[in-house]
Amino acid sequence: MNLERTPLLTDLYELTMLQTYYEHDMTGDAVFELFMRRTPRRGFFVAAGLQQALEWLEQLQFKPHELDWMRRCGFFSDAFVQRMADFRFTGHVSALPEGTVFFAEEPLVQIVAPLPEAQFIESRLMNILHYQTLIASKAARCQIAARDLPVIDFGMRRAHGGEAGTWAARACYIAGFSATATCLASARYDIPATGTMAHAFVLAHDSESEAFERFARSHPDNVVLLIDTYDVARGARRVVELAERLQPEGIQVQGVRIDSGDLVANARMTREILDAGGLTSTRILVSGGLDEYRIADLVAAGAPIDGVGVGSSVDTSADVPFLDSAYKLHQYEGKPRGKHAEGKTDLPGRKQIVRQVDPNGSLSRDILCLTDEAVEGTALLKPVMDGGKQLPGVDEGLSAARQRCADSLGQLPAALRALNEPGDHPVTLSEGLVALRETLIARTRTADHPDH
Amino acid sequence: MNLERTPLLTDLYELTMLQTYYEHDMTGDAVFELFMRRTPRRGFFVAAGLQQALEWLEQLQFKPHELDWMRRCGFFSDAFVQRMADFRFTGHVSALPEGTVFFAEEPLVQIVAPLPEAQFIESRLMNILHYQTLIASKAARCQIAARDLPVIDFGMRRAHGGEAGTWAARACYIAGFSATATCLASARYDIPATGTMAHAFVLAHDSESEAFERFARSHPDNVVLLIDTYDVARGARRVVELAERLQPEGIQVQGVRIDSGDLVANARMTREILDAGGLTSTRILVSGGLDEYRIADLVAAGAPIDGVGVGSSVDTSADVPFLDSAYKLHQYEGKPRGKHAEGKTDLPGRKQIVRQVDPNGSLSRDILCLTDEAVEGTALLKPVMDGGKQLPGVDEGLSAARQRCADSLGQLPAALRALNEPGDHPVTLSEGLVALRETLIARTRTADHPDH
Repeated sequence: MNLERTPLLTDLYELTMLQTYYEHDMTGDAVFELFMRRTPRRGFFVAAGLQQALEWLEQLQFKPHELDWMRRCGFFSDAFVQRMADFRFTGHVSALPEGTVFFAEEPLVQIVAPLPEAQFIESRLMNILHYQTLIASKAARCQIAARDLPVIDFGMRRAHGGEAGTWAARACYIAGFSATATCLASARYDIPATGTMAHAFVLAHDSESEAFERFARSHPDNVVLLIDTYDVARGARRVVELAERLQPEGIQVQGVRIDSGDLVANARMTREILDAGGLTSTRILVSGGLDEYRIADLVAAGAPIDGVGVGSSVDTSADVPFLDSAYKLHQYEGKPRGKHAEGKTDLPGRKQIVRQVDPNGSLSRDILCLTDEAVEGTALLKPVMDGGKQLPGVDEGLSAARQRCADSLGQLPAALRALNEPGDHPVTLSEGLVALRETLIARTRTADHPDH
Repeated sequence: MNLERTPLLTDLYELTMLQTYYEHDMTGDAVFELFMRRTPRRGFFVAAGLQQALEWLEQLQFKPHELDWMRRCGFFSDAFVQRMADFRFTGHVSALPEGTVFFAEEPLVQIVAPLPEAQFIESRLMNILHYQTLIASKAARCQIAARDLPVIDFGMRRAHGGEAGTWAARACYIAGFSATATCLASARYDIPATGTMAHAFVLAHDSESEAFERFARSHPDNVVLLIDTYDVARGARRVVELAERLQPEGIQVQGVRIDSGDLVANARMTREILDAGGLTSTRILVSGGLDEYRIADLVAAGAPIDGVGVGSSVDTSADVPFLDSAYKLHQYEGKPRGKHAEGKTDLPGRKQIVRQVDPNGSLSRDILCLTDEAVEGTALLKPVMDGGKQLPGVDEGLSAARQRCADSLGQLPAALRALNEPGDHPVTLSEGLVALRETLIARTRTADHPDH
């Protein structure tokens, strides 16, 4: 079973529910929406993962060995397993294009499909979109903190499995990162790759100078040397000596990397040593436990840093390792649906997000409304799939998503871009949506749910 | 490129280093060890992921389209790309069998292989072992908190990608969980599957009673009903009414699930309603934002709960979303190697962990020593691969790992099992290891690293 394609990458309950839906011909059109609830330390989210979600939906199909497992597991009727051989996703999808900045309660994706199809896709659809959106949102904060400094993703090794490592690189690139260390992400998504050496490389040699020189001659176009295995100052001086030896051959030391200690102090000391040795154009990259908060500190300190590498904190979104994502039934057979319990009520109906921007190009507010309401502004949810097939032009490539993210972040008022205590949630509900929610509450309270 | 098998799921620097190693015939035997550094809120770790790591090593090979990417990316010489066509892992691996409890600084896996092979595998080896060990360690804490209550993994949707969701189920099962909701994990690893219905199922029906009845008739052997969509007490009463209607047909309501609100109060109220209705053997399952801390609260409150479902907090190890894992060169060509900078020194040499247990069967201490030292106790690192092939009997199945974990957790003194402020790190270094570290420090300080 191919991990990336198998329909068995789902929760069992999706299938138990489907058997009942089919037994009672509950195949009318359902509207499900995927959204995030409010999350501390996240003033905004960045939409990511749509392309993988659509590709998964297009190829969704139970193969014989997957049906065999369904037969063997003991939970399902033969008639249901037989029926699943013909299961496909044939629905309509509207979504925020990747790179779009959005807010809590706003649908990232809206599915309109026969109930069993719309239900079944829940688990994996969320698995795909939640993670990439989580990471794009975290990475955007890092890029905001870094301002114009290049930020590089090094995080695959401690990402949660290989799919996470590969998708993290993609989500970070959408959010503005410059490159990734992960080869598979570069090969699949055409993201610039980067990488030099580990401490083990230096340790495997009998001297640091020998390690540097061998690396430089082996990779004359990509000479970035890791200088903190023993002593940063000594490492930097060895770089200067090496550069003199290499100069006659036209090989330049393009950069050094510092991965430990007080990065501000080490960067300053290294800059002085390199400059004194004439290496004024050799760049200083730093890494080691960095996230948006520490990047902001480095920038505020005015350290002479030319790039930062981030890893585990970003690829696991360590301060917020998951979002409060939800995939909810909001309409079935034309009627509004929603959970109403313990004082919380879902927002029912089929919705649209309309963004209003002030004359300076700054986001003033979003209005969450019903699709058939006329509200002034730019509608953000776009049709991306119909009849289970991607619409032409939807697979736009990462550069377009990356540009959209930069534009979308550029519209954010400073308060919403703040790393700590971001500004108020700029979303208001339309009159139509408020009225529909009241209808739902009334119906839940009274006669619409009789026992029978 | 198959995500689970491709050698391109690696960091670029592994390959840049390899080119240089091969150019200088640096192919002597290297010893690398993978270990975790101390981590707040984790008194112990549970080894997991070895089987996937060994399977990955056995099949490791660059295929033509992967070599094509290496040619195209511009970082490598033709000679090196050509050489990588024949690259295989041929080394020796010793490891902690899955389910073994271990501590910071203790090697989870030890690789002895030609330097380029041992170096190359770093990124993906850590990606596999770090995540499963992270989750098994988190899940063991949940199972300790839950005592004899069954704990179920529901977390796939917000796990970080599909591989994480699938592996989380596996790691949780090793740590003692009873079942998983993830079909693929059940199909691949033969873990018991479980699952009933979502709120959407109830919402898609015009009444809650109708939803319950349809589900029960559709799945008469698996009747577990979600009762908190509208009002828990009303939901529980409807379960009682339904049970009466179903009794003549021999269908029993096996359980109810509560997913929101004050779980202790809701469970108590539900138990009263079910008992008053004669459903004394209907089980109450709870879920919704649970982790080891909240499970401990539920148990301490004496709530009438028969099982707990956990999700995002466990599958992302939310309080500690990554461990400080390291994969370090500790010996090359027979000489000890290690980083020594900023007051921190690696533990060099090829090591063994020896566990000493007191007469009551309780762990008294571990001694971290060199493989050639004679130390009394049980050696924990076992040979698992030689010449790049798994040794017979190593692929033992999950039940053995699960039993080992239960036994290994049973040996832990109460202080080390504590959820908060776990007891002192019970690891001492052997004389031989301390002496070797001193040798390394002296060599680093003085003449062994001259410039030349």
